[in-house]
Amino acid sequence: MRKNIPVDFTDVYIRDSFWTPRIDINRKNTIPAVYEFTRKTGRIDAWKWKPGKDNRPHIFWDSDVAKWIEATAYTLEKNPDKNLEKQIDHIVDLMAAAQLKDGYLNSYFINVEPKKRWTNLRDLHELYCAGHLIEGAIAYFKATGKRKFLDIMLKYVNHIAKTFGRKSGQKRGYCGHEEIELALLKLYGLTGDKKHLELSKYFIDERGKKPNYFSIEAEKRGEKGHWAFFGDKENYDYYQADKPVRELDEALGHAVRAGYIYSGMASLAAESGDRKLFETCKKLFNNILLKKMYITGGIGSRKHGESFSYEYDLQNETAYAETCAAIALVFFSHRMLQIEQNSVYADVMERALYNGVMSGVSLDGKAFFYSNPLSAYPHPGNILEEHVKPERQKWFGCSCCPSNVARLIASLGSYIYMKNDDGISINLFISSSTSVNIKGNPVLISQKTNYPWDGSVSVEVSPDVPSDFKVCVRIPGWCSKYSLKLNGANIKFSVVDGYAVIRRQWKAGDKIDISFEMPAMLIEANPEIRHDCGKVAIQRGPIVYCAEEADNGKHLYDVAVDVLNPGFTVSPDDSIFKGSKMILVNASKRKASGWGKELYRPYNPKLDKFRLKLIPYFIWANRKSGEMAIWLNRGAI
Amino acid sequence: MRKNIPVDFTDVYIRDSFWTPRIDINRKNTIPAVYEFTRKTGRIDAWKWKPGKDNRPHIFWDSDVAKWIEATAYTLEKNPDKNLEKQIDHIVDLMAAAQLKDGYLNSYFINVEPKKRWTNLRDLHELYCAGHLIEGAIAYFKATGKRKFLDIMLKYVNHIAKTFGRKSGQKRGYCGHEEIELALLKLYGLTGDKKHLELSKYFIDERGKKPNYFSIEAEKRGEKGHWAFFGDKENYDYYQADKPVRELDEALGHAVRAGYIYSGMASLAAESGDRKLFETCKKLFNNILLKKMYITGGIGSRKHGESFSYEYDLQNETAYAETCAAIALVFFSHRMLQIEQNSVYADVMERALYNGVMSGVSLDGKAFFYSNPLSAYPHPGNILEEHVKPERQKWFGCSCCPSNVARLIASLGSYIYMKNDDGISINLFISSSTSVNIKGNPVLISQKTNYPWDGSVSVEVSPDVPSDFKVCVRIPGWCSKYSLKLNGANIKFSVVDGYAVIRRQWKAGDKIDISFEMPAMLIEANPEIRHDCGKVAIQRGPIVYCAEEADNGKHLYDVAVDVLNPGFTVSPDDSIFKGSKMILVNASKRKASGWGKELYRPYNPKLDKFRLKLIPYFIWANRKSGEMAIWLNRGAI
Repeated sequence: MRKNIPVDFTDVYIRDSFWTPRIDINRKNTIPAVYEFTRKTGRIDAWKWKPGKDNRPHIFWDSDVAKWIEATAYTLEKNPDKNLEKQIDHIVDLMAAAQLKDGYLNSYFINVEPKKRWTNLRDLHELYCAGHLIEGAIAYFKATGKRKFLDIMLKYVNHIAKTFGRKSGQKRGYCGHEEIELALLKLYGLTGDKKHLELSKYFIDERGKKPNYFSIEAEKRGEKGHWAFFGDKENYDYYQADKPVRELDEALGHAVRAGYIYSGMASLAAESGDRKLFETCKKLFNNILLKKMYITGGIGSRKHGESFSYEYDLQNETAYAETCAAIALVFFSHRMLQIEQNSVYADVMERALYNGVMSGVSLDGKAFFYSNPLSAYPHPGNILEEHVKPERQKWFGCSCCPSNVARLIASLGSYIYMKNDDGISINLFISSSTSVNIKGNPVLISQKTNYPWDGSVSVEVSPDVPSDFKVCVRIPGWCSKYSLKLNGANIKFSVVDGYAVIRRQWKAGDKIDISFEMPAMLIEANPEIRHDCGKVAIQRGPIVYCAEEADNGKHLYDVAVDVLNPGFTVSPDDSIFKGSKMILVNASKRKASGWGKELYRPYNPKLDKFRLKLIPYFIWANRKSGEMAIWLNRGAI
Repeated sequence: MRKNIPVDFTDVYIRDSFWTPRIDINRKNTIPAVYEFTRKTGRIDAWKWKPGKDNRPHIFWDSDVAKWIEATAYTLEKNPDKNLEKQIDHIVDLMAAAQLKDGYLNSYFINVEPKKRWTNLRDLHELYCAGHLIEGAIAYFKATGKRKFLDIMLKYVNHIAKTFGRKSGQKRGYCGHEEIELALLKLYGLTGDKKHLELSKYFIDERGKKPNYFSIEAEKRGEKGHWAFFGDKENYDYYQADKPVRELDEALGHAVRAGYIYSGMASLAAESGDRKLFETCKKLFNNILLKKMYITGGIGSRKHGESFSYEYDLQNETAYAETCAAIALVFFSHRMLQIEQNSVYADVMERALYNGVMSGVSLDGKAFFYSNPLSAYPHPGNILEEHVKPERQKWFGCSCCPSNVARLIASLGSYIYMKNDDGISINLFISSSTSVNIKGNPVLISQKTNYPWDGSVSVEVSPDVPSDFKVCVRIPGWCSKYSLKLNGANIKFSVVDGYAVIRRQWKAGDKIDISFEMPAMLIEANPEIRHDCGKVAIQRGPIVYCAEEADNGKHLYDVAVDVLNPGFTVSPDDSIFKGSKMILVNASKRKASGWGKELYRPYNPKLDKFRLKLIPYFIWANRKSGEMAIWLNRGAI
């Protein structure tokens, strides 16, 4: 059922004024910084840890190492680096030495609690770690051609395939933290080995069947009731295991797990042509899109269980909106787009990428947000909202986000282009080039743009020999006016599901010039989102803006934007991030000097009118800690 | 230092269109309902509980029984009731039988854990229970003249006085939950026994001294670290025991405990003339008034520790604002007013009473709020905000509020008048009469008013013989325009600290007519309260209004009040509460029909303009569960 095949990062060359500096920082700063914390916390030596030594491994440390390898591998492909390769090879050697004869591989369960192997799939993340190791091995193989890590993982996958399944003697389990499902499908994409597809399908199909495996397993362990986290109630929706996955109809539970299993489900639907599964994925995607997503593309609003809350419950100051969850949404959207070319998927992917994902990493690449709140009121008294940090952190106890954002940035090339039998589609606007084979002919595609700061995109389409195919250019959902020219002239084209479709006989040097009008816009939220009622946000192109205390002083919660006469000006502003544009808008707030000490008084506001400065949300908190707000009071008085 | 002596409930006769029905409901419904739960949960039989039986006593059950007795006693004085008296006498008999020879009295520590007596003052509420029993005994003695309960308590107080103090062999402790301090001062007011004053003074003075008694005690119990509730951190400010009380300068910690100890401190200052202590009380009162009080008079915004949050942190939907805390604020204000006649204290007392306290009980008197949120969005998904109920409850596990609100309503007579050497002051406007002795002459004072629905108050001052004294009438802080006439004619009078002071030769039948203009008013909150920024509330007289879904449909968070042209109309509305007035105001909200399914879109609101109906906040949630809001978006568009 997969119609569009992403052009892999290996085949895409990015030379972009926005992204190239971010990709370089990721390679030069983030990857070494993450390595350093990974190493010094003991995660690497975990493979050879022995009881009595320091740095006792944690159950999900392998996943952090795996994601660091994966991120690094993506960079190695374009920027070979002997030292980095050595670091990875050293880890691979440790894994090879640690791997048990039967193929089992997990630093915690080999070294710390061998007897607990496969006894608590619900909580202990074994298959989750395996999934990330598989993804790491694939990336390293693709980047370097080295097989050792891949072979280790193939052996481990064989062991897993023997252990889990519906045959007699096998465990009918699946992981409490999904990830292996999508990893096995990636592996199938590389190996073409049906066993890998089948194993993923087993994990997906078995999930949530009654009686629930997690309960059976818990009973075997002699546990009464349920994990304390949820009290006595069986909240298997936390694990997306409350019912068989094809019956899911609302995005619930831990948002990262949800995003990963939905991605796995979409990949499986693409491979297997399972329409029912795809319809389920659409239902879940739409539930997120229409009821559970922040304007930043952040998902999972709730700290409790790092989870989705109920529909439209999207609080701003205490938003969880984990960086990893926004990344998971990128994965999910990207997989949906492979099945159905509809710009709605690319819009979500872009929204999450430019806002909720990129907000997760500092401009120097060395500090990270786990939670990405939509407004900030830093105060030491916020003891109940400790998950919301006003400043990015260098590391976390559960440090999933740093390596996750690193691997996404390093593999950005995979998200720009897709090809199919009929031609090629352009999903993200990033100055880059690729060469794809369409109907047997190599075609060079290149983009030049100053996106997201500017709406002009120039695409060159150069087939080796003139040939007939379709070029589909996404029309972003945020854009209401645009023009498209071919070789400088207006042409006729159709728009299908949000893509401008140009079918013709292409010849070398053909040039499409698209100009998306990109005004600063006031955005309102659905009245069901009570937290945003009476408020507006400002967006320009795909970029969501915010106001920061550093530019505008305190009391951002009191700022009202003049919605009748916003008087936007958009201008270049390199002060925080090179190439960035800032927005000024007419606004007012109450004069602090107009107040005595009273808490309440008859309404008689004295307003300061001023020009509010807005900066892109993803670069907030790169100066000193202070207030921040995306949603601002609507006002004209 | 006490200048004003409250006229006791025993000497005040209330015949008021607002309060008499509430007082009758309290007597006829609340008191029996509270008794029934008190009895059937085992709280009464706790005095004779034996190991192995059902309903094992809880450490603070005695306080619930005591407060029920206290509330009932206040009603008995004006409405003798043999059955109720029998119920109390039965309990008193049980207490007499349970009391140990040394005077000790506590159903939990006598029957359940005798060895733990006085071993954990920090957490186990022993002296707190004693305090409430003392208050119950005083009320019952005043109402009926019966001494048995009082004698039991005098014996217990003797035991406590022997146990605690600074002499060798005594424990230098004080209670983790304050209450006994104010109770002992009440007892001193009755007995004139200096020992009772001294014991209270000891508890107040000793509190918070270093080394902290709670730490010493915990060490003796072999406990490491601190109570799990706070992690390892010593958060003695939760108990107002982080430093000696005279050094306190910010309202912190558990709000009910804070309100009780501040009340005790103010009473002690009044008795002892301790100016430093009074200045501390003023500092704390002002900290609450200017930085930590909801517009409803609710205090303690935070669920965590049922405590004060940091300054200006007054969230609405998740407000804790415990009914008991608003009651404690009434106590504190009332005591401050006794030292210093300033309307600011009476204003706070009135604000809390008519809003944050009365919201705590349903109109049928049988259901109660523990938390009193300022906005409601009932949803089963609000699992983290379980303290905020959208409907009043019949009982609670920790059921302190029902009997507390019952005793306050039953003793309302004590809060209206105060007398001093120079005359009398009128602090609350409630149709009522009293006879007080001023300079040796009996003076009959009576008020007639339809307050709080109407601002006209008629006061008759009738001395037995013509005599010279002052009558002070409070000018409420909410009132900016008023007129005052004496026997139908304008007179000259001074206004001192918010009181109109009329000094003259009074003769029988003299009549003061005061008319407070009482328009509906828009109120704004200090810009430091981020939760109320961009919003207004509506208040009329002392009554804070709110909008309910039952009148206005859903999406109250989206309602904007036309602040440029509110177009208020105020009209009688008996539909929920007899005599009540409702307010209509110009408002708008976005048309639900104007929206597709999208979560976010370019700002283009389609507004429904309508007349928003507001009802008094204290009667909210007396119909079916739904949305409610006090603070509404400010809008004129």
